[in-house]
Amino acid sequence: MRSSDPVAPDVVFDEQGREVLGWPEFGEVSRWLGKQVLDSGFTPEVVIAIARGGLLLAGSISYAMGVKACGALNVEFYTEMEKTLPEPVVLPPMLDGGALAGKRVLLVDDVSDSGRTLHLVRELLAEMGAEVRTVCLYVKPRTILRPDFVWRETDAWIAFPWSALPPVNAGADTAVDG
Amino acid sequence: MRSSDPVAPDVVFDEQGREVLGWPEFGEVSRWLGKQVLDSGFTPEVVIAIARGGLLLAGSISYAMGVKACGALNVEFYTEMEKTLPEPVVLPPMLDGGALAGKRVLLVDDVSDSGRTLHLVRELLAEMGAEVRTVCLYVKPRTILRPDFVWRETDAWIAFPWSALPPVNAGADTAVDG
Repeated sequence: MRSSDPVAPDVVFDEQGREVLGWPEFGEVSRWLGKQVLDSGFTPEVVIAIARGGLLLAGSISYAMGVKACGALNVEFYTEMEKTLPEPVVLPPMLDGGALAGKRVLLVDDVSDSGRTLHLVRELLAEMGAEVRTVCLYVKPRTILRPDFVWRETDAWIAFPWSALPPVNAGADTAVDG
Repeated sequence: MRSSDPVAPDVVFDEQGREVLGWPEFGEVSRWLGKQVLDSGFTPEVVIAIARGGLLLAGSISYAMGVKACGALNVEFYTEMEKTLPEPVVLPPMLDGGALAGKRVLLVDDVSDSGRTLHLVRELLAEMGAEVRTVCLYVKPRTILRPDFVWRETDAWIAFPWSALPPVNAGADTAVDG
């Protein structure tokens, strides 16, 4: 390892046992993961984010690796009428997949939890003819798809920097002092 | 203002006069901007990032506003044969625009510098039938398109947290100590 190589940050837990990822640590992990990908010999031509969770890592790892082409796909979990368990579904706006045939694609998400989202999109991209590798910040032990590149395996609840606080609210109706 | 309202961070310059945005400050600005958007009465149905620079703000502001649908578009500057100035060009993978007709879309980039990228994509989304508002972290005085929502106007060189360091390199060929 050279002194300029990115280093993975320390792992932090809060009092409730949650694994807490801070913003600066997210930046460090992004560069560390980017180096893992390049060191493997895989040089992505396109970075695809699974929105929303994968958007931030997709952005930061694309800069870390010097990859310019990026895209995003939306996935949400829905419970269909006849089924008891929610299923991941790709939602619009859809990506124009024609441009991905024959391309080396790095598929990015925040966590491979059940792994079904990552599995769904990996299959979709493979059907488009892409050569796909997957990268996540975290993987849960129960996943059906262990990412090709990952920082931490954890069973803890994860506090990401972008979702640790609740959404902001419009204040027009409820401001107390105008 | 309520005590729980997001607050914009202090502005930091380094010794070279560059405006430096740190990761935690980026998180604070994201929430502050999300509140500006919602307070205006515009409630986005879809958040669209201009990649790569807009991916991170698109991710963090979509969480801040509680908007789930996200997409991304690639834009790069190219110098065409007959022209002397580089022009912004939308590159694949393209977004399937059909899903955006009639939708309230928040278009996100890191900076409105010349403003030509933001202008190009705003026109493209408007042609798809979307009602578009634009948001950037920064705007330069020379821009042709001042975003609807923006944190700072600056003429300084901006150091973003995701591009302040050079890309990492694969180490297999150059590691000195294995």
